[in-house]
Amino acid sequence: MGRRYRLVSDMTITEAIRMISKRKVGIVELVNLCLENIHKNQDLNAFITCMEEQALEEAKEKEKVAKNADFEKQPLLGIPIAVKDLIDVKGVPTTAGSLFFKENIAKEDAFVVKLLRKAGAIIVGKTNLHEIALGVTNNNPHFGPCRNPYDKSKISGGSSGGSAVAVATGMALAALGTDTGGSIRIPAALCGVVGLKPTYGVVSTSGVIPLAWHLDHVGPITSSVEDAHLIFRITRKYDRNNPYSVTRVYKVKRNLSRLRVAVAVGEYIEEADQRILELVRDIAKSLEKMGFSVEQKKLDWLKDLAAANVLMTQVEAATFHKERLLKNPEMFGSDVRERLMQGLNTSGTDYALARKTQTEAKHIFREFFKEYDLILLPTTPITAPPIEGENAVAMARKLTRFTAPFNISGLPALTVPVGFVDGLPAGVQLVASWFEEELLFFVGQKIESIVK
Amino acid sequence: MGRRYRLVSDMTITEAIRMISKRKVGIVELVNLCLENIHKNQDLNAFITCMEEQALEEAKEKEKVAKNADFEKQPLLGIPIAVKDLIDVKGVPTTAGSLFFKENIAKEDAFVVKLLRKAGAIIVGKTNLHEIALGVTNNNPHFGPCRNPYDKSKISGGSSGGSAVAVATGMALAALGTDTGGSIRIPAALCGVVGLKPTYGVVSTSGVIPLAWHLDHVGPITSSVEDAHLIFRITRKYDRNNPYSVTRVYKVKRNLSRLRVAVAVGEYIEEADQRILELVRDIAKSLEKMGFSVEQKKLDWLKDLAAANVLMTQVEAATFHKERLLKNPEMFGSDVRERLMQGLNTSGTDYALARKTQTEAKHIFREFFKEYDLILLPTTPITAPPIEGENAVAMARKLTRFTAPFNISGLPALTVPVGFVDGLPAGVQLVASWFEEELLFFVGQKIESIVK
Repeated sequence: MGRRYRLVSDMTITEAIRMISKRKVGIVELVNLCLENIHKNQDLNAFITCMEEQALEEAKEKEKVAKNADFEKQPLLGIPIAVKDLIDVKGVPTTAGSLFFKENIAKEDAFVVKLLRKAGAIIVGKTNLHEIALGVTNNNPHFGPCRNPYDKSKISGGSSGGSAVAVATGMALAALGTDTGGSIRIPAALCGVVGLKPTYGVVSTSGVIPLAWHLDHVGPITSSVEDAHLIFRITRKYDRNNPYSVTRVYKVKRNLSRLRVAVAVGEYIEEADQRILELVRDIAKSLEKMGFSVEQKKLDWLKDLAAANVLMTQVEAATFHKERLLKNPEMFGSDVRERLMQGLNTSGTDYALARKTQTEAKHIFREFFKEYDLILLPTTPITAPPIEGENAVAMARKLTRFTAPFNISGLPALTVPVGFVDGLPAGVQLVASWFEEELLFFVGQKIESIVK
Repeated sequence: MGRRYRLVSDMTITEAIRMISKRKVGIVELVNLCLENIHKNQDLNAFITCMEEQALEEAKEKEKVAKNADFEKQPLLGIPIAVKDLIDVKGVPTTAGSLFFKENIAKEDAFVVKLLRKAGAIIVGKTNLHEIALGVTNNNPHFGPCRNPYDKSKISGGSSGGSAVAVATGMALAALGTDTGGSIRIPAALCGVVGLKPTYGVVSTSGVIPLAWHLDHVGPITSSVEDAHLIFRITRKYDRNNPYSVTRVYKVKRNLSRLRVAVAVGEYIEEADQRILELVRDIAKSLEKMGFSVEQKKLDWLKDLAAANVLMTQVEAATFHKERLLKNPEMFGSDVRERLMQGLNTSGTDYALARKTQTEAKHIFREFFKEYDLILLPTTPITAPPIEGENAVAMARKLTRFTAPFNISGLPALTVPVGFVDGLPAGVQLVASWFEEELLFFVGQKIESIVK
């Protein structure tokens, strides 16, 4: 496991901020470094819009004030961040990776982008994604496939593929993604970086084109758990204008050294690549040695949750895109069109059953987390498959099997790079109870220390 | 307003318990009084199953121990209670007012019935209801209409019509109902008694035949607000085996004397009978004189909530009854069959939109209750209409217009008798934020004191 996870730059935000504050690196220099990485990796196709000029402009402005800056108030001062092209950044298009939104210039920043900017971040561009975020291969028929930096013939994963690639290759120090069935965690795992899907509703979706209202989450992709923690603290905020926003005081009351970890086992889990499972088992053993209580737990019922998540996603996506689908179906790529049509043809009673499954799932987890603090499982059952000949519809079900259960339940989940299988990265996933992100960061950092 | 609300007996539970504990009335005597009222009002058709023998048996047993009883532990000792025939009582059928469930003998008491029995209650029988609870006229084609005690040619309201009639006529001192769009509050208002729909999930639905999982509430119908409060305290309990059950610590933090009351106005409200609106305005004025802050507030957006509640109810009911509907549609009454078929033919995207409306409604109310403590509005727009020639499908939309918005939002709501229009009772409805039932009881008792 000696290979670095970041191909080009392995500077974390924390390191960059230290260097900026000590004037060991300039903000313009840092932004230029990222822009260079964008230019020299054009073939990865990570960006739909590069905001080079505006980013450099802002870098110069910020550099002027950096000497006297209060880094407590601006914890991201001068940090280059990439934004998935489903999230509004004022003045540039939010394409959603779709022909319908190609000219959709954002009138203002999304709620979450405003928070990043307030903290001093510089947006370097808008990243490639699976069309309308409905899929996980990021083989976008309109903007081209986003390629895996570890093997360009492989998918980056999606739907936030461009965001994961940007972070993996140093095009940005962090990126925003969205996750409705695994769209942050899957590309993060397949590209060897960290991805966080926070608790449902904690990061506002205002200014984000919806995929499925009751499953959509916004969260960070970063190169370290500490960075994910930082972005999370900055972006979690109640948004009184957003009906999906929730408010909650965060407190850690637990004895962190005595956390009870449930390692997911059972048929549903064991269909994964045995080498990925081996990596997860190694982590479990190491955590046990560190003093955590580690126990195997059959979680085959995750299967029903994943299926219900797929159904809900398709129906809600079809609800949002209905008019476009009926008027101009040919403007959607074939896989997305197929899935939207499935959503359109799903009955109310079947959707109601999926919602019933959702309610039951939340209840099961509510009881489950009285006995355990964390679930440990693979993020994906396989490493990145080839772009050539991929079946995006089938791949959506396959790649989301371990991630989607935590969208429908709204639980926070973190993926951490855990090693390589045949030269391709794999991730391990940690899941906690609602609003218990701190546990993810705590154990996530332990995992990083094991892997390093 | 000199007329008594209870036609036969106006003894509240609190009064009955005082008399039992002072041995001014015997438990057997009390149960016999209720049974007499059941017998002499057979034409009202309030009960589907009268549990005469078992109730008398239990009364004898309880009478033996009454001398040494601890009324703190058994606050309902010897109190005759009626149960809507949608809720399981061990050993007798739970018919749901439907041919399909005619022989459906309950194997055990529903969760809520167990709590009542533990508190000392005696179940006197199972009350008539609108078929499968899907409707509000209680004109049941299989078990006959339940009639209004104030005018037998009028409906009792529903779906918990039998429960309201039982309390109004002293057949029981309290009754359990269920409420998916107004089914506790509507018959309570039309029969001149008190009805409480608690916060969603606070009273368990285990052992209750579902109508719509995400809208069903169980609650009491009583002859006083104090009694509703008592039954509420006894029946609210987290049920770890029920996915719809919620847990929450109840605390009143408010300055009760400075409560802010929003009186609902606007087109949607003003389509109600002007004489009912006048009664509600009188209450508002009296509350203002008592020192409450009272303010008019346009709430026309309740309309969308009521419509979404109807759609959700029909789809979820069709989901639960699907097999019966497809195999034996003729076994349903025509109005229920029509509504179930509508539910079956509703698309997933339309149901998803209703759920979106639900999420948005909860958010609107979350913000609303930062400015107000209570909403005051009529319970129903009209008094009880005639049984003859009623159109149950149209009546469902009409009678639930002011009640259904609080099912979809899950807010607690209380109806209190407010007077008479042409000799028929009308009710005023109080609505509070989630888990704020105490505010309803506090102001509900003030309203009782105004009306008396």
